[in-house]
Amino acid sequence: MDTIVSLAKRRGFVFAGSEIYGGLANTWDYGPLGVELKRNIERLWWKRFVHDRADMVGIDAAILMHPKVWEASGHVAGFNDALVDCKSCKTRHRADHLIEAQTSERVEGKSAPELTALLSAHNVKCPICGKSDFTEVRKFNLLFRTHIGPVEDQSSAVYLRGETAQAMFVNFKNILNSTRQKIPFGIAQIGKSFRNEITPGNFIFRTLEFTQAEIEYFIKPTEWEKSFDEWQRGMEEWLIGLGVEDEHFRIREHSKEELSHYSKRTIDIEYNFPFGWKELYGLAYRTDFDLANHQRVSGQDLTYFDSETNERYLPHVIEPTFGIDRTFLILLLDAYHEEEAPTAEEGETETRVVLRLHKELAPIKVAILPLSKKPELSKVARSIFDELKQHFVCEYDETQSIGKRYRRQDEIGTPYCVTVDFDSLNDNAVTVRERDSMKQERI
Amino acid sequence: MDTIVSLAKRRGFVFAGSEIYGGLANTWDYGPLGVELKRNIERLWWKRFVHDRADMVGIDAAILMHPKVWEASGHVAGFNDALVDCKSCKTRHRADHLIEAQTSERVEGKSAPELTALLSAHNVKCPICGKSDFTEVRKFNLLFRTHIGPVEDQSSAVYLRGETAQAMFVNFKNILNSTRQKIPFGIAQIGKSFRNEITPGNFIFRTLEFTQAEIEYFIKPTEWEKSFDEWQRGMEEWLIGLGVEDEHFRIREHSKEELSHYSKRTIDIEYNFPFGWKELYGLAYRTDFDLANHQRVSGQDLTYFDSETNERYLPHVIEPTFGIDRTFLILLLDAYHEEEAPTAEEGETETRVVLRLHKELAPIKVAILPLSKKPELSKVARSIFDELKQHFVCEYDETQSIGKRYRRQDEIGTPYCVTVDFDSLNDNAVTVRERDSMKQERI
Repeated sequence: MDTIVSLAKRRGFVFAGSEIYGGLANTWDYGPLGVELKRNIERLWWKRFVHDRADMVGIDAAILMHPKVWEASGHVAGFNDALVDCKSCKTRHRADHLIEAQTSERVEGKSAPELTALLSAHNVKCPICGKSDFTEVRKFNLLFRTHIGPVEDQSSAVYLRGETAQAMFVNFKNILNSTRQKIPFGIAQIGKSFRNEITPGNFIFRTLEFTQAEIEYFIKPTEWEKSFDEWQRGMEEWLIGLGVEDEHFRIREHSKEELSHYSKRTIDIEYNFPFGWKELYGLAYRTDFDLANHQRVSGQDLTYFDSETNERYLPHVIEPTFGIDRTFLILLLDAYHEEEAPTAEEGETETRVVLRLHKELAPIKVAILPLSKKPELSKVARSIFDELKQHFVCEYDETQSIGKRYRRQDEIGTPYCVTVDFDSLNDNAVTVRERDSMKQERI
Repeated sequence: MDTIVSLAKRRGFVFAGSEIYGGLANTWDYGPLGVELKRNIERLWWKRFVHDRADMVGIDAAILMHPKVWEASGHVAGFNDALVDCKSCKTRHRADHLIEAQTSERVEGKSAPELTALLSAHNVKCPICGKSDFTEVRKFNLLFRTHIGPVEDQSSAVYLRGETAQAMFVNFKNILNSTRQKIPFGIAQIGKSFRNEITPGNFIFRTLEFTQAEIEYFIKPTEWEKSFDEWQRGMEEWLIGLGVEDEHFRIREHSKEELSHYSKRTIDIEYNFPFGWKELYGLAYRTDFDLANHQRVSGQDLTYFDSETNERYLPHVIEPTFGIDRTFLILLLDAYHEEEAPTAEEGETETRVVLRLHKELAPIKVAILPLSKKPELSKVARSIFDELKQHFVCEYDETQSIGKRYRRQDEIGTPYCVTVDFDSLNDNAVTVRERDSMKQERI
């Protein structure tokens, strides 16, 4: 992880948020290369899951929603972390994380008193000072709260959305009325969600704000198993398509105790991070839980009428959730390679760092590298840059030795380098170097 | 405006936010067509101002930033609206808006007591009840405040960013260190900003959260006039390129009184909205105000070293700011046309609504319309859909009469309709209809 974090900063993929002010914990800023990689992930996702399918539409909803949305969804009452303080060294921890790291217990769905009992029963220790002297466990809501208008009281309180999903349910009827979609169909959204997380984040793995790509896929209740299987395959194929090694991720089935009371089946797609197997994506069968709640609390009819069978019913939902930031992280991890490569000196090798990113994902597709800063080379190289940038994201770089510039482009995953040398002035040809094979071709 | 708002809802461009709960004032959700139009605007903007230029890089920074960022920028102290309540009917208003609507005074930069005096001197009336009986004017900070962690006190307070610009200043040094950029160069960002606005919004013109596309362009202090002019041209050419009529926008120079104390020149690009000439974009020369403040408050060296002249200095900044939501709104306004068009009946005409959107902006590029739902037509039409959607955003529609389907595609701005009829089965040809000319061609 340290290698990736350091590369990410040095090359402009990811910077610590508000860094000149000492940082703001668990916030990160995507730099010039990071924003390109992130946009490429989002673009490919949108093409695959929205544009390429006749049964999907997108939305882009407001982050601030009516507070009743979060009451109906259960987030105001139940969207909690279990916190505990070490009385000895005064540090704060998530009780569930402490128990899971030091025991074989699974703790999802357990109440605060149950967690307090487990901490004590297993003599769980503070990871900072080693003592076993904790406060009672208490639950803490993860929704960020703010206020609309000049008065900060309960009547003006609103929440930053804790997930993008609720906007799809709230807009379900609007979308039925404004499109030609018939069940089964899905609504997709990419956008920021916010969670007031306490625990350290492992770089961009767990952050206060994060970009989700979520789908709510509306189905006939009887179709859920088929649809669930299709979406599981769809998610796995997406990862394979991005070039992620298939032994780096796995499916973890949620146990009965872990399942939300309304879900009949949920799986995590886990990735083998440097800090262990952790959740990358989730896939849940949510029944009609959300539409039923919103129908009840809003008083609006959210049923669907099937004109072929003349049936009216509340659709059930399959929910595939993708974290864009976690996708970004695993793509860097998966693409990162160190290898021995020959240097300019005969017989010598050096360690080459190369990001073997899928070419569609690479932030820069082509680097144009004049061999020197001589104006006659710059002129030709600039004209190639101007032409290519109409079609590809290009970088122009004329500093340092050509070897160093190749290494720099390898390290940021640029698939092709175009070198303009003095021969180019005569033969109208350039050298094109491919990133992975390092093969050079005169074109 | 009512026509546009109604079309936007009916066709799935924009829905009222949290509508099933009665809405949350001044929030809006982009629907299936809206999200496509918005993404197209952002994509074209990014291509033009980032990818097509060697002197620009992008970032995508966190919305939550260290509170010192907003102290250094002056937003905590000075980012205020002037509010006043009508004592008679208990409604709340922006004092500056009341004064500007009912008098010829310009009020930017005026203090609360000065505004109170102006309301009284001009006998300004409440637009709701007609009385002139207001409270004192008071200033109200526009930054949304929330808290990180479980304790809501001043030490945990953070703000949702009120503009994207500050992230470019805070990351200035990181970007210098991780890229090859030399002054002059710019940093661009597209992202959400939040302002706790009180006043009614005119649809998506003024909202609690909005998407900004901002550029901070760093220059030598002596170059500001040249750079300012270039950016003004760049902004105008962008609008013209999107197909906006040039008599629909104009430049408004800020007067001396309006200018921030640090700005030597600021202009608005105004658009002729149905509710009057209002700010669409802004262009400001911000001197070194922001970098100097962040350098002072953070204690970090933010100077730039020019290796050609051996000079070290704080760069000055030209700031072009584009509102994506306002761009979206004016594109709908500019594209909307009602015209008389022939019906199927000989000699009859009807009113045709057509969105003459630039083809690159249109949410759907091609609609595939089988003449009927007969399976043999569907089969051919589906295969055309499957092929075209690899390259263009397509819609498949087999409901209603062909005339109604043409009208629907006109109304959402689809440039091309492909009709599959029974002849298609024999001649392997389809009818392609162009939106603006309504010309049909057999291909």
